[in-house]
Amino acid sequence: MLYLIGLGLSHETDITVRGLQAVKKCKRVYLEAYTSILMAASKESLESFYGKEVILADRELVETGSDEMLKDADTEDIAFLVVGDPFGATTHTDLIIRARELGIKVECIHNASIMNAVGACGLQLYQFGQTVSMVFFTDSWRPDSFYDKIMENRKIGLHTLILLDIKVKEQSIENMARGRLIYEPPRYMDISTAASQLLEIESLRKEQAYTEATPCVAISRLGAPTQSFKAGSLKELSNYDAGEPLHSLIMLGRQVHDLELEYLYEFVDDKDSFKKLVLQDQEFFKPPPYVPPTEDDFSN
Amino acid sequence: MLYLIGLGLSHETDITVRGLQAVKKCKRVYLEAYTSILMAASKESLESFYGKEVILADRELVETGSDEMLKDADTEDIAFLVVGDPFGATTHTDLIIRARELGIKVECIHNASIMNAVGACGLQLYQFGQTVSMVFFTDSWRPDSFYDKIMENRKIGLHTLILLDIKVKEQSIENMARGRLIYEPPRYMDISTAASQLLEIESLRKEQAYTEATPCVAISRLGAPTQSFKAGSLKELSNYDAGEPLHSLIMLGRQVHDLELEYLYEFVDDKDSFKKLVLQDQEFFKPPPYVPPTEDDFSN
Repeated sequence: MLYLIGLGLSHETDITVRGLQAVKKCKRVYLEAYTSILMAASKESLESFYGKEVILADRELVETGSDEMLKDADTEDIAFLVVGDPFGATTHTDLIIRARELGIKVECIHNASIMNAVGACGLQLYQFGQTVSMVFFTDSWRPDSFYDKIMENRKIGLHTLILLDIKVKEQSIENMARGRLIYEPPRYMDISTAASQLLEIESLRKEQAYTEATPCVAISRLGAPTQSFKAGSLKELSNYDAGEPLHSLIMLGRQVHDLELEYLYEFVDDKDSFKKLVLQDQEFFKPPPYVPPTEDDFSN
Repeated sequence: MLYLIGLGLSHETDITVRGLQAVKKCKRVYLEAYTSILMAASKESLESFYGKEVILADRELVETGSDEMLKDADTEDIAFLVVGDPFGATTHTDLIIRARELGIKVECIHNASIMNAVGACGLQLYQFGQTVSMVFFTDSWRPDSFYDKIMENRKIGLHTLILLDIKVKEQSIENMARGRLIYEPPRYMDISTAASQLLEIESLRKEQAYTEATPCVAISRLGAPTQSFKAGSLKELSNYDAGEPLHSLIMLGRQVHDLELEYLYEFVDDKDSFKKLVLQDQEFFKPPPYVPPTEDDFSN
């Protein structure tokens, strides 16, 4: 059996009781270690909590070495641990499809992920549109596909969750070119970088998918003991120090319920000016005002 | 301290280790019992698992009796257990806002909910648009606000998660009129009812937000031992017996990746005809084909 087990967001103890029971009976335990990190735990603390060895699985192992991971999983129990939920922002459907091909049974033990825990900021999950990702811009690569998606969401009034880049075990271009297996220190995109990149793309595209004044919510270390939220304009957040990773950003849509707004007030510097931002931003993508029918309309 | 604790989807053991630790130290433990159910557990099995009494909290208690629930929570630990995640499809932000007003600290312990675990069907979570809800139609009340939302999602290529009605502790109109506190047996909407209601509204609105041939995925008892998925046309699913509750339905959008499709094949009767449905459905809301500029375009 292959167990896919979600670890939740932060602590060793964020695993479910059922997940822990499964880990304890597994022969080998892999930890997916390239799309997210467990904020208040480490490989070592997990090993001591589980009472067994944890094997770090980098992208290479999962994507090209999955047969190695799945070895003997038809007769033994193997665990693949994923921060958040196994079907979270990054899914591991290819691993499951491979397991199926090999006739290996798969069981998934779900957990919280950023995709649902983000509701903790007070915005209603059913009012979110598609989720977008933002990567670190480089001199030559500044992909802006998120821009059209945010526009699509905001045109129909919806909030957008923006997931920020995580770079783990990446090589510099120089080291890659020279074939040196030297990895850069991990990098986690922060709120101010994300907000600045958003503003840069708006200044180039000029289609007003959003503006400097568009209200956003900065989410820092969701689910960790130091979790924090900050609501403000995109411009404000481009200068906001959100502290230690991980960070995510939400851009509000036009549909903001009173209860959502009231909840967000807890995270603003000034209620009145935030409310003003929200009202002002609601003018974008507003449905056209109702025009009463004229006599001409009835003449047909 | 008020602990909001997600219970996950199905088993007593779907609670996180941290959640269980919190429950064990709480003076009073409430279970939210009106928006969802834990499929493989009951009040009694939870009580035996926790080793303490669990108080069922119906809508009335949570919405109007929250001060009773929050009594002494400034000095004692109180738990409010929610199936799924506390910020799932139904949020309890009003309870948290009330706790804040009373100066009570709040800690949330997240868990999986339908909103993220739905990724288990193989469709990518970031390709979902807004989530919609569908209620049981009555003779006089057949609300169709989901229709426009599905249309909005599908216009931009996105999948739609459709949450199906749960009726717990509801009175019949007659009993309500006579002031008799007699409750109807709980009702959980099934896939075939949901699909039929969708088809009924399409036949009335005729805007082709979807058709009988639109591919959908039926999700039954997500996270429970008997969990199952079934992919097929909306028409097929209107005759599908999905078994015991709870059920949810996904309507596909135009953006279906090959990996998503390959995963769904596991749940279809016939691969080729399902693929044909998907390709055919992608003709709806397709962006207009690229038209090369003419000389006239350059003359301005």
